[in-house]
Amino acid sequence: MKVGILGGGQLARMLAQAGVPLGLEFLVVDPKPDACAAVLGEFIQAAYDDPAALDRLADCDRVSCDFENVPAGALAELERRVRVAPSATALAAAQDRLVEKDRFIRLGIATPGYRAVDSRPDLAAAVAELGLPLVLKTRRMGYDGKGQFLLRQHEDLEPAWRELGDQPLIAEQWIAFDHECAITAVRSATGELRCWPLSRTWHRDGILRLAASLPETHPLTAPARERVARLALDLDYIGCLTLELFAADGQLLANEFAPRVHNSAHWTIEGAVCSQFENHLRAVCDWPLGETALRRPSLMVNFIGDMPAAPGWLSLPDLHWHDYGKSARTGRKVGHATLLADQPADFLRLSPLLGSAESQALASIAAA
Amino acid sequence: MKVGILGGGQLARMLAQAGVPLGLEFLVVDPKPDACAAVLGEFIQAAYDDPAALDRLADCDRVSCDFENVPAGALAELERRVRVAPSATALAAAQDRLVEKDRFIRLGIATPGYRAVDSRPDLAAAVAELGLPLVLKTRRMGYDGKGQFLLRQHEDLEPAWRELGDQPLIAEQWIAFDHECAITAVRSATGELRCWPLSRTWHRDGILRLAASLPETHPLTAPARERVARLALDLDYIGCLTLELFAADGQLLANEFAPRVHNSAHWTIEGAVCSQFENHLRAVCDWPLGETALRRPSLMVNFIGDMPAAPGWLSLPDLHWHDYGKSARTGRKVGHATLLADQPADFLRLSPLLGSAESQALASIAAA
Repeated sequence: MKVGILGGGQLARMLAQAGVPLGLEFLVVDPKPDACAAVLGEFIQAAYDDPAALDRLADCDRVSCDFENVPAGALAELERRVRVAPSATALAAAQDRLVEKDRFIRLGIATPGYRAVDSRPDLAAAVAELGLPLVLKTRRMGYDGKGQFLLRQHEDLEPAWRELGDQPLIAEQWIAFDHECAITAVRSATGELRCWPLSRTWHRDGILRLAASLPETHPLTAPARERVARLALDLDYIGCLTLELFAADGQLLANEFAPRVHNSAHWTIEGAVCSQFENHLRAVCDWPLGETALRRPSLMVNFIGDMPAAPGWLSLPDLHWHDYGKSARTGRKVGHATLLADQPADFLRLSPLLGSAESQALASIAAA
Repeated sequence: MKVGILGGGQLARMLAQAGVPLGLEFLVVDPKPDACAAVLGEFIQAAYDDPAALDRLADCDRVSCDFENVPAGALAELERRVRVAPSATALAAAQDRLVEKDRFIRLGIATPGYRAVDSRPDLAAAVAELGLPLVLKTRRMGYDGKGQFLLRQHEDLEPAWRELGDQPLIAEQWIAFDHECAITAVRSATGELRCWPLSRTWHRDGILRLAASLPETHPLTAPARERVARLALDLDYIGCLTLELFAADGQLLANEFAPRVHNSAHWTIEGAVCSQFENHLRAVCDWPLGETALRRPSLMVNFIGDMPAAPGWLSLPDLHWHDYGKSARTGRKVGHATLLADQPADFLRLSPLLGSAESQALASIAAA
């Protein structure tokens, strides 16, 4: 069976890594010449709406995406010619932050207060309504903290408006959360849904840095699973879906969702019986879903900018290395490592290898 | 780092699967146009001693092999130009069954009685010396039971001699073993050696069909490890090395060794903390060795000839699928599946999916 993937970054690369043992072949389409998934299958360097590339994708048995901002028109055309999962509708639902939040409200999934901002008076109204601090974001195409401003005081409004004001925006109430977490589910075409353990996440400068599995007995697990299940059902979703959440005062507030495999669940490659990557492909190919149970408590560290020297890391027992084969560049996700251990306190073995901010965050995760 | 591999079969394919996350790139050389490892790296279809292919391999950072019958001259030439592991000497030591057995004797590793057979009178002498039944084998190029005859009675001698008699042979005492097993070790350039748990193996028609991890407390583990360590030290070995053994009356007799990753340890991909494939590459690249501990009792089933339908297998929890992407052909190893479970008795879940001979062998493994 041949799977076409729009987008050839590390998510496509890890999908193909999981899919090759399943006997799948891959066709990767990406406009960038150095797409890191290219080494694991056939590669076409082309725009996502390039007609020749779409013809080749339409000849695959299945098509999926490694990111959500694929042009909706291209996906809709593909859907008429080949099985696409998740659907163009599901992807579109995540492309606009306002549409996303409205869906949370309609589904009864609590989310921080928000307001559309299409003009300078809208922004003033948002401040009056939601208070400060608040987060001003572009409605479309933001990721890894790009296209966002945290407005702490009235003086912050004008610079943010000058930067972002020429496009549709959303203002979101700022939450003084205890921590962030994310739940990943996989859903089959027959409607079977399985969730991995909740993932506790920690960001710096808008980029995910650390993610750790939480025990299945964690009190937030059941409510998180219930929310992602409601969302997946509403989207008639096929494949992996991640819901990012704020935990504040023991309650969950939905932040956003990603209609794809997700960085917060990379630890499932070794830490769960069946990884998010394999299960995404199983769902897309109509195969039985794999077990999402935790094999051993897991912590993932993202490598941002460049890869550290491998030997120091690889000398730790049950440490697993993921070099995405990318060249170094500031702010770029170039790899990750996952450490498995009997208990979270053992994650502290990584401290000597981390910078001070990460090390401090790790201490708080290991103590939780 | 770029690793060249001579041979592009499933072992090279699984090496590359383990190596891509490590950030390694691969150059695969194989004379066959449909080498199944080709999809995971650069591929050169050429004879193993093709000068242009050797030039390209010499430009890699490391060179290794996916089988032991690479022409010794080609490897020796490569060794002058690039780091080759395991060494040409180690490969040569496994290419001739007589040399292999002589080494066992020299190292004090018990092995069934044997005798070189270079003439019809030699064969008669072997029967007189070792008794019947005995196994007559070609000294070179045999694998998966090819180039062997079991001689049960005097009438079997003449047909076997007519088939094999034009090449150097070895006669080996036939052992009424309780079961077969194999031990895989990985050794680094600094001499560090680690062994996976002993693997209990079961062959039919000379081809490995089932392999199961044995508990580290199994009484044969320590003597098996001691033997493979002696062999690895003698060969100044780098990478993975497998010693195949007969277990008879609680004693071990060495059958043969393979200077490479081995089918009997495929279950280490999911069943051990670090697989034979990753550890082979770690050793070859001078990285710290990974942990060889068992994660969960594991059973591997080989698929010979063609792949069964995936869904029936994939519906079993903790079942892992390995389709080598080969076309179907009688007697060909086209894939394997590994089942992990809390105890060997749970392996019986596979019985309904197996033929009667395999099912019976599985029952005996699960009861052990």
